[in-house]
Amino acid sequence: MDQERIEKQFSFIREIDREKLIGRQTYLSDGKRKENDAEHAWHMAVMTILLSEYANERIDVLKTVTMLLIHDIVEIDAGDTYAYDEEAKKTQKDRERKAAERIYGLLPSDQGERLKALWEEFEACETPEARFARCMDNLQPMMLNAATDGKAWVEHQVELSQILGRNRNTHAGSEELWEYARKNWIDPNVEKGRIRE
Amino acid sequence: MDQERIEKQFSFIREIDREKLIGRQTYLSDGKRKENDAEHAWHMAVMTILLSEYANERIDVLKTVTMLLIHDIVEIDAGDTYAYDEEAKKTQKDRERKAAERIYGLLPSDQGERLKALWEEFEACETPEARFARCMDNLQPMMLNAATDGKAWVEHQVELSQILGRNRNTHAGSEELWEYARKNWIDPNVEKGRIRE
Repeated sequence: MDQERIEKQFSFIREIDREKLIGRQTYLSDGKRKENDAEHAWHMAVMTILLSEYANERIDVLKTVTMLLIHDIVEIDAGDTYAYDEEAKKTQKDRERKAAERIYGLLPSDQGERLKALWEEFEACETPEARFARCMDNLQPMMLNAATDGKAWVEHQVELSQILGRNRNTHAGSEELWEYARKNWIDPNVEKGRIRE
Repeated sequence: MDQERIEKQFSFIREIDREKLIGRQTYLSDGKRKENDAEHAWHMAVMTILLSEYANERIDVLKTVTMLLIHDIVEIDAGDTYAYDEEAKKTQKDRERKAAERIYGLLPSDQGERLKALWEEFEACETPEARFARCMDNLQPMMLNAATDGKAWVEHQVELSQILGRNRNTHAGSEELWEYARKNWIDPNVEKGRIRE
């Protein structure tokens, strides 16, 4: 056994335990508390396994799942940037890049480079896997918001134009899932006034 | 789009949100709160991606990750059964089987059967993937217990014989990881009296 290698692996594995403490703005479906990054990642990974059949392009499921499991790890240092917080979004890229260097850097270099490259691929959103992963990242909180009668949308007074702006590329992962989301989660909540027009 | 199929898929995906509410006995590495099933599953999935190189036998990583992501879903109905609660363990199998029927049964039958079969494969622990998954399921809480100076071990007055009993097959997933765990997590905590001899 390569002692240095396994120590580095467990040092990363212990470090990412802190992702369980990074809060998001989305309420769980019981509406009682908000979810954290680790729970969000787990949920999206299961979704990908079940919904990959709707991807516009053929995707490598393990690659997409891995991307989703590790892409929020940067938030351990950089914090969660709320989708509609325009001020925080200005510094987001820089904060997250530094975090990626430090945290993926804990791993043996081959694995650290691989995970950092997957995170960069997710951010660039230019491959079938990244497009589908981004689609999951947008639809999972939308599904929970709809399940809680739009609780987070109402709290943040979110406007339809903000949602459509954020989701301008969701269809690029899956036209079918985007159509489903629009019809079942967005439109009914606009009608009920939970999303502002 | 097959409307009935996608409705079934999202009905399952919404239902498993409740896994985030199923508490475990393991403390997070900051020692402040215990983790839940969804966080635990996420952590093990990342571990599998990074540690599959130590598997005794060649494993299909996506299959192992999927198994780990979905095997605790039965606890939504059956609750978490603590590793050393001998009374609760008597009814565990029956409670979990009923839960599997109901929850995997929410999915379209092809996907429901596939996930239930993966859960059964994990439980039977007779394939390389199931053996490695079981190894992860045992080592992840052990790692966190060691990181919190044995907090959960001390609280439950856990004995070395109980740990060795529960881990009698951990080596079957990975001799190297079991050796590492024994040397770095178990032995030092026996020495310090946090695990009772």
